[in-house]
Formats: sequence, C-alpha cells, structure tokens
Amino acid sequence: MRLILALTTALTVAATGARAEEGMWTFDNFPIARANATLGTSIDQAWLDRVRLSSVRFGGCSAGIVSDAGLVMTNNHCVATCVANLSTQARNYAETGFTPRNREEEAKCPGGTAEILTDISDVTERVRAAAAGKTGLAFNQARDAEIGRIEQEACGTATDKRCQVVTLYRGGQFKLYTYKKYTDVRLAFAPEDRAATFGGDLDNFSFPRFAIDAAFIRLYENDAPAQTPTHFTWNADKPVEGTPVFVAGSPGATQRLLTMDQLATVRDVVLPMDQLIASELRGRLIRFSEESEENAFIAMDPIVGLENTYKRGLGRMRALTDASFMTRRAEAETDFQRRVRGADVEVRGARVEAAPGSVAVQLRSDDPWRALGEVQPIARELYPAMALLEGGTGVGTTSVAGGSQLFAWARTLVRGAQEREKPSSERLPEFGDARLSSVQAALFAERPTYPGLEQVRMEWWLSKTREWLTVDHPAVRGLLGQESPEQLSARLVEGTTLADPAVRRALWEGGLAAIQASDDPMIQYLLSIQDETRAIRADWETRVQAPTDQASERLATARFEAYGDSVYPDATGTLRLTYGLIEGSDVPGQRFGPFTTFAGLWDRATGAAPFDVAPKLLAARDRIDGDAVLNMTVSSDTIGGSSGSPVVTAAGEMVGANFDSTVLTQRNAYGYDRNVNRSVIVTTGAVTVALRDVYDMGRLVEELGAR
Amino acid sequence: MRLILALTTALTVAATGARAEEGMWTFDNFPIARANATLGTSIDQAWLDRVRLSSVRFGGCSAGIVSDAGLVMTNNHCVATCVANLSTQARNYAETGFTPRNREEEAKCPGGTAEILTDISDVTERVRAAAAGKTGLAFNQARDAEIGRIEQEACGTATDKRCQVVTLYRGGQFKLYTYKKYTDVRLAFAPEDRAATFGGDLDNFSFPRFAIDAAFIRLYENDAPAQTPTHFTWNADKPVEGTPVFVAGSPGATQRLLTMDQLATVRDVVLPMDQLIASELRGRLIRFSEESEENAFIAMDPIVGLENTYKRGLGRMRALTDASFMTRRAEAETDFQRRVRGADVEVRGARVEAAPGSVAVQLRSDDPWRALGEVQPIARELYPAMALLEGGTGVGTTSVAGGSQLFAWARTLVRGAQEREKPSSERLPEFGDARLSSVQAALFAERPTYPGLEQVRMEWWLSKTREWLTVDHPAVRGLLGQESPEQLSARLVEGTTLADPAVRRALWEGGLAAIQASDDPMIQYLLSIQDETRAIRADWETRVQAPTDQASERLATARFEAYGDSVYPDATGTLRLTYGLIEGSDVPGQRFGPFTTFAGLWDRATGAAPFDVAPKLLAARDRIDGDAVLNMTVSSDTIGGSSGSPVVTAAGEMVGANFDSTVLTQRNAYGYDRNVNRSVIVTTGAVTVALRDVYDMGRLVEELGAR
Repeated sequence: MRLILALTTALTVAATGARAEEGMWTFDNFPIARANATLGTSIDQAWLDRVRLSSVRFGGCSAGIVSDAGLVMTNNHCVATCVANLSTQARNYAETGFTPRNREEEAKCPGGTAEILTDISDVTERVRAAAAGKTGLAFNQARDAEIGRIEQEACGTATDKRCQVVTLYRGGQFKLYTYKKYTDVRLAFAPEDRAATFGGDLDNFSFPRFAIDAAFIRLYENDAPAQTPTHFTWNADKPVEGTPVFVAGSPGATQRLLTMDQLATVRDVVLPMDQLIASELRGRLIRFSEESEENAFIAMDPIVGLENTYKRGLGRMRALTDASFMTRRAEAETDFQRRVRGADVEVRGARVEAAPGSVAVQLRSDDPWRALGEVQPIARELYPAMALLEGGTGVGTTSVAGGSQLFAWARTLVRGAQEREKPSSERLPEFGDARLSSVQAALFAERPTYPGLEQVRMEWWLSKTREWLTVDHPAVRGLLGQESPEQLSARLVEGTTLADPAVRRALWEGGLAAIQASDDPMIQYLLSIQDETRAIRADWETRVQAPTDQASERLATARFEAYGDSVYPDATGTLRLTYGLIEGSDVPGQRFGPFTTFAGLWDRATGAAPFDVAPKLLAARDRIDGDAVLNMTVSSDTIGGSSGSPVVTAAGEMVGANFDSTVLTQRNAYGYDRNVNRSVIVTTGAVTVALRDVYDMGRLVEELGAR
Repeated sequence: MRLILALTTALTVAATGARAEEGMWTFDNFPIARANATLGTSIDQAWLDRVRLSSVRFGGCSAGIVSDAGLVMTNNHCVATCVANLSTQARNYAETGFTPRNREEEAKCPGGTAEILTDISDVTERVRAAAAGKTGLAFNQARDAEIGRIEQEACGTATDKRCQVVTLYRGGQFKLYTYKKYTDVRLAFAPEDRAATFGGDLDNFSFPRFAIDAAFIRLYENDAPAQTPTHFTWNADKPVEGTPVFVAGSPGATQRLLTMDQLATVRDVVLPMDQLIASELRGRLIRFSEESEENAFIAMDPIVGLENTYKRGLGRMRALTDASFMTRRAEAETDFQRRVRGADVEVRGARVEAAPGSVAVQLRSDDPWRALGEVQPIARELYPAMALLEGGTGVGTTSVAGGSQLFAWARTLVRGAQEREKPSSERLPEFGDARLSSVQAALFAERPTYPGLEQVRMEWWLSKTREWLTVDHPAVRGLLGQESPEQLSARLVEGTTLADPAVRRALWEGGLAAIQASDDPMIQYLLSIQDETRAIRADWETRVQAPTDQASERLATARFEAYGDSVYPDATGTLRLTYGLIEGSDVPGQRFGPFTTFAGLWDRATGAAPFDVAPKLLAARDRIDGDAVLNMTVSSDTIGGSSGSPVVTAAGEMVGANFDSTVLTQRNAYGYDRNVNRSVIVTTGAVTVALRDVYDMGRLVEELGAR
C-alpha cells in the first residue's frame, strides 16, 4: 500500500505542510485556489503574470513598477546606500531629501541594478544527473559546474539579462530563473531620512510605526526611461481593515526546512556569535559617529544596516529560546519523520505501512536526519572560522572584514584573477562565466569609501577573528603576523589605492600578472592569506556543506512524498508571492490596531532624535489631514529582503510597500505563526501626501495618476 | 522507614552531592577526612584556622597574608582600580609599575578595605523564626529586618569589624560572619600592567598563560603596618606536578543549586541580554580609548573589567548550550527529585518509601520545583527592567547606569537620605544601621572621575534601557522625558559637582533636607526617578525574589534530607576552601601541561600589543632563568571572585595565587566537572623572580623570607 499522505494536510503543522496564509510561494506553484478560498478573491494566472512582471528586485530589496515610464517604488532604506553614494557632507540628501525637479535631475545610483523575473523553467533533472553517484565535495562541484553551464548557455554574455539557477527546497528542485536586467537605475525621489526613520532603531521592529519609508527609482534603457506598460495601478484610497492583500517580493532567507539538530546549531553557535560581535561593532560605530559631523554622516548608513541585522537576530534568538515555539517545531519534525520513516504512521486513525522501494523505506538505511545530526558537531566547530574568514555559511550574518569595501574589492580582484586562469566549470561558482558581468559591474561602480570607517571595520574584524579563533589558530597567525589589528588595518587602509575605480579596472583587466605585480598592500595582503582562507572554505564545503546538501536533497524528496505540493520552499532571495489581510494584532507583547495616522506622528514626536519630525515634513503639518493613514499592518508571510515589496489588492492595485515587521515576527525565519506574524506597510496614501504636500513632487503624483 | 540517603553518595552527581575535588566549602563544614583521603594529606582543624586567619578579602578579590607586618599578596588585576586611582596620565603606574622604595612610599588605596573572617556562628533558627508563617514580600522584609538586627547587635557602630549574615544553601542556613576590618590598605607593589596582562583579553581564559598577575598590598592599623603573626609561609620552590594544594578565597557566586527551570531563564534571557549589551559597551569603550592617549589611560581599567565579565558570560553561555553538560545537570535534578518526592526511590537496588511527615511527603503538596517553575515567566518578563534600573537580580551582570560612578554616588546619597528617615528595620537592607559605615567609607573615598568616561557609560545605559524596555515603557518615559540619551547624559555629567568628596560628605550629612534642597542635576535626577525605579524593585522582590527565596528554602531542607552534609552551599562571595592537584588538562579543546616558563613568554612575544613584553621585564631577560615556572594550573573548584586566592600546600606554605581559569571552566557556575575545571595560578616562584630580578624590590623579598 502506497503512502498517500498528501491527503492528510489537516494534520500538518507549520514548516511542513502550509495552512491558511502561510507560505512564501514561487510564482510557478502559487496555490491560486486555496488563496481565493481563504481570502474570498478571484485571482487567476493572468493576474499572477502581471504581478510578477510588475515586481522588481533592487539590491537586497523588493520594489514595484508604478508607471509606464519605468517608475518604481521601494523603501527609502533600500535606497539609503544610493543616497549616501550620491551625497557629500556638504550636500547631504539624507538630510534634505532628494527631490529632482525633472527627469533630467534624477541621478544614477552607483552600481545599482534592477531585475524583473521573466521566465522560470525546471532544470532539476539535468542538475541531478550531473551530480548523480558522486559524494562529498565532488558532488557539490559537479552540481555547481552544471549550474554554471546552464546559466551560461541561457544567458551567454548578455548584459541586459541574468540567468540564475535557483536551488529550491534545499536541493529538492532546481529552477532556471531568467531576469530582464537594468544596469541604469536612477534615483527619482527620496524623502528626508528622518521622515522615513522616525523613531529610528528604537521603533524599528515594533508597531505602531510612523514612518514614510518610501522612495522612487526609475529604470533606464539606452539612457532613456524604460517603457513598462505592465505595472501596478496606484491606489491611494484610505485602506480598510480586513482587506485581502498580496505581497510580491524577494524574501531573503528562511530556515523552516532545517531539522531540529540544525536549528540547535543556529541557536547555540551561529546567532550568539553573530549577535555578540555585531553588538560590539555597533558600539564602535556609534562612538565613531559621535566624534565629528563628518563621522556621523559617514556612519549613518552602516549603523542603520547593522542595527537592522542585529534586531533581526535578536528576534530570532527569542524564537529559538521560546519553549512553546520550539515544541511546535519539534512536533512538526516528528510528524514528518513518522510519515516518511514508514513506521508507526497513522493516517486518520489507521496504521499504514510503507511500500517496498518507497522513499520511506530507503530512508531507513540512509537517514537524512541522522546524517544532518552527524554534521552538526563539525559545523559548530568550523562555523567561527568560516563565518569570519569566508562568509557564505548560509546561516550567519557576520560579514568578512567587517564589511570593509576596500577589502571586498581586493578579494574580488585577487580571487577573480586566480579563478579566471581556470576553465569556468572549475572555478569557485561566483566567478563562473555567467556571473562575471555582475561581478564587474559591482567592482567598477563609482562609490565613495571613507578611510576612517574602513579602519573601524578592519580593526574590529581582525580583533574579533583573533579573539574567536584564538591566537594559536594558524589562520590567525597568517592573518596578523607580528602586527596588531590596529597596525595592520592602518597600513592596509592608508596604503591602498583601490578606492580609485580606474585602479580596480586596470587590475581586473590585467589579470593575475597585474595582481601579482601590484604593490598595493591590500592586494598583497589578500594574496598572502588566500591559502589559509581557501582551505577554511574547502574544509567547510567538504565536511559541512556537501553532506548537508546531499541529506537535504533526500529530505526534500521525502517531503514531497509526505506532503505533496502543499509545501513551499524556504526563501532564497528570489521572487515569491504571499497573501494575508490588513489587520492588527492582539497577542501578549503585541497588541495594536492595524493603522497609524499623521496625527499619531505629531503626538509621538519629542523633538529629540530619533523622535524628531523631519523639518520639511513638520513644516507641512498644516497641509496634511491628521486622519490620513500613515502605516498599516498585514498578516502576510514575510521576512527580511521583503523590504519594499509591493502590497497589492486582488484588483492589481498597489496600496503600499512593506518596510518592517515586528520583533516577534522574526520567528518567521523558522516557522509561520498566524497570530503573531505582522508586516508593517507604508501606505500609498501616505506616500501621496508626502509627494504632494511635503516635497513638491507634483510631477510624480501626476505620473502615478494619483487622486 | 526513614530515607537514609546520605549513605548513597556514590550515586550522586555534580550539583547535588559533592564528589572528589568538588566543592567550595565553608570553613565550618570542610570535609577534612575526605580531603585528606583524596589527597593523601593530613590537615586538621588547627591548619584550617590558620588558613582562614591568613586569608583576606580585598574588594571583590581574595588575597593571602605573607608576612607578620601585614603584607598581603593578591592579583595585579585586583589592585588595578587602586593603581588607576593613584595614577595620573603623567604618572601612570600601570605603565611603569608601582615600586615604592620603602614602606613610607606605599600609598593608600582610595576607598580600599580588607577583611579577615574571625568568627562564624549559626543564626538560622533566629532568622527562620522571624519570618515564620509569612509569605510574599512580608516574608523577605521580616527576614531582612531580623538579619539587620543580628548584624547591628553583633557589630554596633564598630569601624574595625564587620558583621554579615550570610545566606547559605539559598536559604537553607543563615550564618553570622564576623570580620576584622582594615580601612587603611596601602599599595606595596604592582608590576608593569603588561607583565600582568601579557596576551591581554585574548589569552584571558585560556592556557597556556604567561602573566605575572600579582601585586602586594599592606594592611595598616593606626597609621602603622598591622601586626599579623598568623600568615602563610612563602615557598618559592619550583612546583611539582601532582602536588595537593588548597585554595582559600571568596568565590563570587555559583548557581549550582538552581533548578533546570531557573537555569533556562539564565540561558534564554539573562545571559543573552547581559552579554549583548556588554558587548556594545565594550565597542564604545574601545573606540573611546582610541581617541586619545588620555582616553586610553582612562578606559584601560574599565575595559579590562568589562572584558573579564564578558568572557565569563561567554563561557557560561557555552555551558548552558552544551547538550551533554545540561543532560548531566538534568539527571542530577531528577535524582534529587526522585529522592525527596519519595516515589520510585531506589537505594542500592531496593525501593524505599518516605516516612509520613517527612520533607519528602510534605513536598508532594507544596512542590518547590513547581513553585520555581511558575516564577520563571514572571522573572523573564521583569528581568530587563530590574537589571537595567536596579541591578541586584542575583543572576545578571548588567550594571546600573553602565557603572557610572557619579550616578552611583547620587543614588547612594538620595536613597540613603530617604531611607535614614525610617527605623533601621524598615529600610532597604543595604541602608540598615549595621551597613552604614561601609556605605559611608565608599561614598567619602577620594577617587577620580572622568567626565568623558561617565558620558559614555550614561549614554550607553540610557539608550540600551530605552531599547530593551521600549519607548512606551513608563519607566523609560520617566527616565528620559523629552531628552535624548546624549542630551540627558551631557546635562547631568557636566552639571554635577559630586566628583568632589566634600560635596558628597556635605550632602550625606545634610540628610534628606540637603538632598531635596540641592540643585545638583544628578541629585535632582535621581530624586525624580525614585518612584519608578523603586516600584520596579518592589515588583521584582514581591513577584520573583520572595517566592524564589521561599521555594529555595524548602529545596535546601529537602537537599539536606536527601544528601546530608555531603552538600556544600552555592558560592556567595564569602570565604571558602577548595582543594585539588597541580595538573594539566587533556580534554577536547583544552590540552596542555601544568606549567609555563619564562622561556615560553619570550617565545610567545610578538612586540605588538597585547603580546609585547613589558619593558622592565624585557630588560631583565638575561637575569632570569628561562626554565623558571611562571604559571601553573590546578584542578581545584573555583569561580570568579577567587582571583588572588592563596594557593597553599598541606604544610601551610603559599605556592601561588589564582588569577584566571579557562573558558571551559566557566561552566563551574552551574556544576563542577573534574576533567575540565582548571584554575590558572601565578606561582610564588615567578613573583619572587619579578621582585628580585625585575623590579628591584629586594626589601619585599627579604620580608617574605624568600630563598
């Protein structure tokens, strides 16, 4: 008797089979019928296609097209780096807002790219076939090489599209995503930063919020605004509680399919280390920013980004140490195990046995949970070195070299030169032929660097690496030699000329010979640490990543067997659609109605940062209807990376953009909780008020067709 | 049949009944016979008395008398605050060492006091009787009032002794400790700071160590060196592996008697918050110290202290997230529960039933584990406010106002004035009559304050309080009003005159009228927040502390019933004796031999801080025998607060002072692990070398009678 368990979804719990509003769905597997049944809507495939083609990925954020001339709305915090790059201390757009009087004044975001997902095709069989029969690192290399070939075949050297093989269900599926790519993205409007960040770090991840966290960019092609006949309709009407909405965006990463053993590693090792060292960097940057006006300007964007990451980690720590949340998670795992192991499985009261040859039976001898359990002690041991020296663990947030831009460029140059000596299929995947144009675009972009900031980042990173790996670790000896973190950072930051894009371009184009001949200390330093850092990465990939990937693939197969297509994949930074209702929250520690208004903003203001109203916004107070809705909350299933996601109605009208979620919502990384999960939205109504009544941006109001 | 379970100690595990070298024993319940049997020694009561009377408590540290003229050895890090207080930027003793040529040059440590435990008497019945029949806050108030009366009766207003009722076994016993007290403590020698801190924060909590973390103070009476005929004999011979040693000191606090529910609160709430915010303060202080030579001087001592606390917390987090450690801890609890609940108890294979009327039977209806379990959700909710605004939670390390000295003085002044209006028995316990002389001594001591440092501390504290309690918390509104943390800190720190000891004395002596009339902004600020902060403390004491204390007392009674006197009390910052062997370690992550030498120091040195050898020490290199032992490890059971503890042989000879322990040893807070626990000791041999060959302190070498 075959296990027909897909029928039993009523028994399932979060993280296995999805219920109600749960799920960050891919556009090629969206549960149209269920969503319509849950919400009382009637969307169809044509609606889905329109929403997908109106949705934009910009940097790590999401965005939505709102006019036929390439105008795109996202969050202000998503353009913060662009604003910082376009600003100087004397002409600080974060302070004044960026309000170009006409399209000609719209300014190009250095290194900014935007993408629209145009096609999805299944390449699972091809990727599987390439790695079949292999184990360990050979498995991953064969898979990565095949992925590189697929991407290269599909996109070649085209600069106006990007091809990406996306790994879904942790290896359960591989899909080729093809994007239309825009490499000329201009800033069309940003408000005063304080209008977008009112309450700052403190109100971040709480509600009520009172923030106009919105900005506009414009897609350009051939030096002209892109023609975008498919776009969302702007609807600035006052929102109504209970309205069904859909949120289209690119949520960054969830870990809902991790086993309990894997989650324990995140809880015990990954999050504590990441959070502790981030907290120290935060302290260093806060003090740095207090030292001068200039430093305050320089550190603003990095502090905001860091605090956002830190707060997210805090919410996650709370979830993983919440006994009742973890109990539910464990129950879900037990349910899954009982189903696929084919022992003691009950379906509606009756015991069912697994069929010979089924996945359930195979798993008895090749148990992925056991395999993943055995990886964890190794992952716990190797994580600090991998996180600090290589990054890319897939679970942590620690940035290599503390996010030093000069270090990152040097690493790209040195590794890029070394890797390009090999055939594409043998390179580190990020330097495969299909990815080189993106690498170059990022490398050649003009963007300012600040030696003081770079010094803080490098010093922190070197000293934390020494502290966490200990002085006697061979990599630490290689990293520091006889120098202190302070001395070494100063020598590298002061001596390097990589801040000049022409220097970077010449080194890139000169290849390995130019790199080896360079006397730039940062380049020489990166060359000198390659053996050690590459060895750490290889160790991680062989002993942690490869066995994890293989076991996860087996788990994914088992999951389809157990739950059918009621399962959605973990978020992977690619386009997803979620749905929910406009509503408030009424659980302990989180009780609020769904809306805030401008009147509430005036009430909350104290005059002292970060509770000071931005000057232009304050000056417009008399022109603004105090009852106009500013922010709202919705129950859709989102996670970091969803920032800027267009919030649309069943009629395809845009009513807001996601910009935040509550601290309790951060548990969303590990499982959806309908009673708790609330995303925070800046409404199109509030944005219209800002454009029309505060920033004199009538030309955009007109372009939006706003009433 | 009565439960005669004390016989079954072979079955017990850490945290319930002690085995082998486990236990921080009080001097009135030291297991002489067992220690002698374990170690092959023959100590007796007279030996114990000599050791007790030769042991000194100094600040939060331990120390040992080593001459008949009041000379006392402790760690250099224990005198760091004294050194900082005696130094100026121009005459920085941390840099040069403090090497007085004669006794007259020995300098008084501002506010320094030292104590010797002269008597212990049991007052359990009296304290119990006072609180009998009471519950909730009334229980704690009655108990605290009786404790205050006992202390007052025993010590009166004497300034040369101190009386302290010590709560042992979390309420299982109350003992009156009487100390001989020295309020004139002078610094007799401190090495260059780097000689004591070689490897700095990085080598801290690891081994091998290469640090001469030793210093000498001298006890004074009537302006003359105290006569101390009872003292340890100085033995500077090369130590031998396997030698039995005893360590006498005042370990700060362990939490071995906490239930698993209580530990989960520490793991999930207390440690993560304390560590995260400490890490940010660390970052702020590091950057502050980099801003100028002056700031580096000012921040050195605070950073060292903070990093020590932080590292300790890190080791504790690792213990509480170590599955095998926690499993052993849980097994110990289960063993205890089975014994005292009188159900399913097996003694050597036979089932025993509890006698009617026994504690075991009583606990069935009044279960302390259940009571403590029910307190935990409340403790989790109230902890952040209590820790940030009041301190004194007994589990956390967060210091109120970030450790601002000016704030602390203001709080003492305001609360002291308010409390002294009431009869002693109705006051907050820390302002009872018996404690006022210590309060005054600390308040009137001359010690420097640094506005820049105070500003960093206050800013950090106010901003973290706002972040963790959220903007909408009533206490936060009261704390900040319409000001930002930066504005408020600046106004208070710049405006206050409390840095002047004469001002503090006048305000103290002027009582409540003077306080209320004061226009000092820090005083006025403290007055303004009393209602809110006192309410938070009362809430904690009523809903967390009182029920915890009552349940813990029941648990303590049950523990004696189950394990007899094979149980030792949790450390409480009072004098204890532990024992072990000189030996290395050979467990994963901790493999080393028992000794390091001066030759090893020269090898490890890089020249870059903190791995630079102190100049005077380096200059003496040729005079020093490279094979001389510098540091060693022993298996005795210690915890923070044991710093400076004399390490003595069965012959009563001092062979070193405890100054560190490994990161893995930090689990000692929750349970002793004989294979892992290693204390790090600076040897008397190394100290003799430093005095004789490096710092030209022959006069002390002579006084010590060193060979």
